[in-house]
Amino acid sequence: MFDSSVYSNRRKALRDKVGNGVILILGNNEAPANYPDNTYKFRQDSSFLYFFGHAHPGFAGILDVDAGEDYFFGDDVTMDDIIWMGPQPSVRELAAQVGVTKSFPFAKLKGMIGKAISQRRKIHFLPPYRYDNMMLLEELTGIRASLVKEHSSLELIKAVVSLRSVKEPCEIAEIDKACNIGYEMHTAAMRLCKPGVSEQYIAGVLDGIAASYGNMVSFATILSQNGQTLHNHDHSQILQAGRLMLTDAGAESVTNYCSDHTRTIPVGGKFTSRQRDVYSIVLACHDRALELARPGVTYKSVHIETCKVLAQGLKDLGLMKGNVEDAVEAGAHALFMPHGLGHMMGIDVHDMEDLGQCYVGYDEEVRPSDQFGLASLRMGRRLQEGFVITDEPGCYFIPDLIDKWRAEKMHADFLNFDAIDTYKDFGGIRLEDDILIIPGGSRFTGEKHIPITVEEVEEIMK
Amino acid sequence: MFDSSVYSNRRKALRDKVGNGVILILGNNEAPANYPDNTYKFRQDSSFLYFFGHAHPGFAGILDVDAGEDYFFGDDVTMDDIIWMGPQPSVRELAAQVGVTKSFPFAKLKGMIGKAISQRRKIHFLPPYRYDNMMLLEELTGIRASLVKEHSSLELIKAVVSLRSVKEPCEIAEIDKACNIGYEMHTAAMRLCKPGVSEQYIAGVLDGIAASYGNMVSFATILSQNGQTLHNHDHSQILQAGRLMLTDAGAESVTNYCSDHTRTIPVGGKFTSRQRDVYSIVLACHDRALELARPGVTYKSVHIETCKVLAQGLKDLGLMKGNVEDAVEAGAHALFMPHGLGHMMGIDVHDMEDLGQCYVGYDEEVRPSDQFGLASLRMGRRLQEGFVITDEPGCYFIPDLIDKWRAEKMHADFLNFDAIDTYKDFGGIRLEDDILIIPGGSRFTGEKHIPITVEEVEEIMK
Repeated sequence: MFDSSVYSNRRKALRDKVGNGVILILGNNEAPANYPDNTYKFRQDSSFLYFFGHAHPGFAGILDVDAGEDYFFGDDVTMDDIIWMGPQPSVRELAAQVGVTKSFPFAKLKGMIGKAISQRRKIHFLPPYRYDNMMLLEELTGIRASLVKEHSSLELIKAVVSLRSVKEPCEIAEIDKACNIGYEMHTAAMRLCKPGVSEQYIAGVLDGIAASYGNMVSFATILSQNGQTLHNHDHSQILQAGRLMLTDAGAESVTNYCSDHTRTIPVGGKFTSRQRDVYSIVLACHDRALELARPGVTYKSVHIETCKVLAQGLKDLGLMKGNVEDAVEAGAHALFMPHGLGHMMGIDVHDMEDLGQCYVGYDEEVRPSDQFGLASLRMGRRLQEGFVITDEPGCYFIPDLIDKWRAEKMHADFLNFDAIDTYKDFGGIRLEDDILIIPGGSRFTGEKHIPITVEEVEEIMK
Repeated sequence: MFDSSVYSNRRKALRDKVGNGVILILGNNEAPANYPDNTYKFRQDSSFLYFFGHAHPGFAGILDVDAGEDYFFGDDVTMDDIIWMGPQPSVRELAAQVGVTKSFPFAKLKGMIGKAISQRRKIHFLPPYRYDNMMLLEELTGIRASLVKEHSSLELIKAVVSLRSVKEPCEIAEIDKACNIGYEMHTAAMRLCKPGVSEQYIAGVLDGIAASYGNMVSFATILSQNGQTLHNHDHSQILQAGRLMLTDAGAESVTNYCSDHTRTIPVGGKFTSRQRDVYSIVLACHDRALELARPGVTYKSVHIETCKVLAQGLKDLGLMKGNVEDAVEAGAHALFMPHGLGHMMGIDVHDMEDLGQCYVGYDEEVRPSDQFGLASLRMGRRLQEGFVITDEPGCYFIPDLIDKWRAEKMHADFLNFDAIDTYKDFGGIRLEDDILIIPGGSRFTGEKHIPITVEEVEEIMK
């Protein structure tokens, strides 16, 4: 946790931005896996962490904008809790650690919200994504649980996004720590990636590293020799020589800041020439984004420029044809890269995705697209100093999608389907780094850079 | 997964036991951690696994008892799903794999339940523990989400408990596999337990082993030098020479069957004489339970007999006094062992705990107690061949509880508080094995027995 003033300052800034009413920030509760008391590892809500700091279940916070007061809600432990869970500080002490002087038992929350409603005051809350909190919001506000998300406060969403988008130095230090754990995870995967080893074994080792040094993985690890499946959580394959293993994995630091890196490496340690060709194109895309990303540039424009590098490379390989600019404008390259170049990262690996991608990655100036491929770009708006974003181009050969486009003659002016067909056994490549936007450019987060060039990868896999 | 006939037979047995109406078995869905699409590792509902086998989100099953028919509900994948998650078998194929010939899109579930309700047929469902399924049950039945649990079917609960309690040979083989992973976890912990190592590091390694070889940990690992806290999930301490490290941890096999073992070992590898004294008492309790557990014996009686071994041992050490039988009947020993001897284990580590401990661990003959300590015994009823249960006595010195009892003069006839006070820095010891009830006795599950005697533990820690 940071110094109490960090949280006090953030809450004051939030109250100032929202302007009036009552802001309710719900913490998360334990999440049952297979029965009520067998719960997943606790993960606090990221906005609660940002404004109220504490990573324990059973808390909520209120910011009374009109009164300029903050309140912390939670229950002190009983003797039974001490026997089973150990002694804990009082809620009053916990509140004081984040600069809040007024704390109450959790049950008082309903009365306070009810009173504000009866006074016709606006209750600002964020869109809930945990179903227990939807049910709690129904109990607190009277709005049906299944509809409560639609009653969340747009003023609050926009205010939270504006604060959380620009990372403070103390946050950047935590992201660097998470990336250091990510370095350990990915280099371990490189050392273990040999024919005959199971994907599951390596993915489990990465889980262990994330848990040993941080909080846990920042998202379910994608690790597969079927890299053409973008979010492949199936780890049932045994690695085969000649295939590529794609690993998209990250850790959360102890304080829940994230890392998110992808590497694609040859099972056994040596790229084939065909693999090196495609790999070099993806790496060129990755490097092009690094060249372009800086304050003031829209990330949508960076995405489009990297797509041109991809299309040019695939044209040089004989898989695409025609004018590269036109191909990218039409979206023909999205057969090979159906996703966006990157997303914001912070306390969430897709930072603030619960608040709505259209508010996090877009604004009045830069609007989301509905074109296949570009529509999946999570971050399009103008970059600012202090943003942390991912740079993650990819190139995939998805047999079902190739067959579909071929049958439909999609973008046939730009695609050489006969040549593409010969790559249907290729798999996919993605390369991802996390970057911090700094004056005039960007820097990688984390102390050490995970091997990424063909030479670096083959060297560590020796 | 098992052969389709295993599931068909179980469903037929369930229909026969329940007798009439419509049985609805909901599968689990993805569980969001910090935003809707960032989900925890998927864990299927255990009863759905038992009757419908498939460990994927988005499914439900119906057993129409009156018609003698079973239905499987789920949605086939779209092209978008294939791009992001890979190709999948059709729902029709999945249903066939578990012996169901009639499958439908998930949206048809509401119509089928609605029709049965309009026909005044009884809808049997189990108590939900996931909040999204509470909300789904509200949508299906009209019963408020917050109250739906109280409308679950007692006939169905009792029928499911009677089937799942007695493990089939194919299930025992899976439990053995989970216990083999547990062996790897606990022996790794023994090798790593040295002064200066962090609890978090070792707990992370165990997470990794569980994920590398099985599904995941069967519950959040308890690993602490503060073993006096029974369910200590805080791993923030650095191990110190002279302390004991308590590790209560288990894995799920790939098919979600569980293991659950506890060992308590000296940081650095050698027990002190005081530690050896208390350890020997707990081990004697553990061994006494093994001697007594067999078909036809109530586990409550086994619990009470082991408590007598505990009380006798503590009397010999000078911490208890008076008549041992009387002390145990009064519950004085529960200062040192506030929990029960064990619980059922199967697809859940506390098997079927979601269905209600009073139905799983008790029956008309053996009723739960409300005495402190005995009230925490999860399994009291008569043992049967095929039950898998844990044998987990412990002895803890909980400073807050000791102070409270001393101040209240609780059981002062049986407790030497002056002597007990000198153990307030001791911590706690628990020793746990999983046993299968067989004709005339029991056997340990798993191929290898985790070191447990003082000599075995000191040998592996060398």
